[in-house]
Amino acid sequence: MLIEGKNAVREHLGAGGALSRLYVQKGLHGAEDIVEKAKAAGARLVFCERKELDRLCGSEKHRGVVGVADEYKYCGVEEIVSAARKKGEKLFLLILDGIEDPHNLGSIVRVAECAGVHGIIIPRRRAVGVNATVVKVSAGATSYVKIAAVNNINDTIRALKEDFVKVYCADMQGNSVYETDLKGDVALVIGSEGFGVKALTAKLCDGAVALPQKGKINSLNASVACGVLCYEVLRQRR
Amino acid sequence: MLIEGKNAVREHLGAGGALSRLYVQKGLHGAEDIVEKAKAAGARLVFCERKELDRLCGSEKHRGVVGVADEYKYCGVEEIVSAARKKGEKLFLLILDGIEDPHNLGSIVRVAECAGVHGIIIPRRRAVGVNATVVKVSAGATSYVKIAAVNNINDTIRALKEDFVKVYCADMQGNSVYETDLKGDVALVIGSEGFGVKALTAKLCDGAVALPQKGKINSLNASVACGVLCYEVLRQRR
Repeated sequence: MLIEGKNAVREHLGAGGALSRLYVQKGLHGAEDIVEKAKAAGARLVFCERKELDRLCGSEKHRGVVGVADEYKYCGVEEIVSAARKKGEKLFLLILDGIEDPHNLGSIVRVAECAGVHGIIIPRRRAVGVNATVVKVSAGATSYVKIAAVNNINDTIRALKEDFVKVYCADMQGNSVYETDLKGDVALVIGSEGFGVKALTAKLCDGAVALPQKGKINSLNASVACGVLCYEVLRQRR
Repeated sequence: MLIEGKNAVREHLGAGGALSRLYVQKGLHGAEDIVEKAKAAGARLVFCERKELDRLCGSEKHRGVVGVADEYKYCGVEEIVSAARKKGEKLFLLILDGIEDPHNLGSIVRVAECAGVHGIIIPRRRAVGVNATVVKVSAGATSYVKIAAVNNINDTIRALKEDFVKVYCADMQGNSVYETDLKGDVALVIGSEGFGVKALTAKLCDGAVALPQKGKINSLNASVACGVLCYEVLRQRR
């Protein structure tokens, strides 16, 4: 998996992420700290021309620094839950029901990291997984946030409910999020960009939460909506 | 100005926006409503090959529909303020202090539309203006949200303060936004992606507001942070 750009590589290394190789553009300034850290982490260092990096990445967005990391390692839902319990915090999970755009997933991971979400649950199929674009857009947050990939989102929701976690889906027809008590163990379900939360999944949830929409256009972008909802959880729990 | 993609063109036309020309890929299905509306709006219709559209747009993201519109028309700050007063609502403005990425600006315009912001104020120079990418990313919200481009952001802030508008800048070192009263006339200042709000501008403001950051990474994306702040204004004003 390629990690492109100084910030993304820096965050990855800062979070203790492994790199098997680090490509740095010849003559590049301002990446000395990254080179040091990568060496310390055991990465093989390769200095090369900008054009070679363009070819490697298929774009010019790397800005002279590209790391090669092992494939992303998902964790289990159990691991997320027990890590949160160990901290003594009320559970706060995100369940993504079919996000397809890696930019949205990366952005949601970044939001989750800032808002103190304990973990993200995504379906193993029919949705984007953690790829290089996701890592880059997340600005390194994929190194900090636990992400689980499950075979069946609905089974996971059923299991969480048996564990007394309240599961709410984001849906414009739902109750105002500001009138919903989110102080206990909660999981928020965010639907796909095109179709929202699937009907069967929505039915399984304890309820639906909505944001007020004052405008004429249909909806917020998935990651912005997710950000607003996550921060409402944070606000209630202060 | 090119407007690329079915959704963006549809929203543009739906908002009463003018099109001088509409390019549609030969044999494309699902754009019949757009063609009808564009014709009614007086646009010249041009059917062409997909490759010609690729060349026109410089990418393949148009998905077969491209509108040509006149350049974006900015309004004055006065116009924004008086429209809000006419509605009998407390003023709610966004001031963008040097946003450079058109994706961020487009996303902020979309947020502003959903959150009922009365208008956005941007600097005429050293920041991105409303271009085709902004229109596309905003999903048509540029047709609904009033945007003013001013020569000097600081002069605008001074004038707003004389008009008893409270001006707060978004700054991680500020007071919790949840402890700040945003129910009156307010303007939120959002800084640039790289450098935040400029020191002189921050000094002019009545205060700084911050979002809690639970994570290890420095900050939220500008448009997500803007979304969370705007919805906190909405929540307080319910």
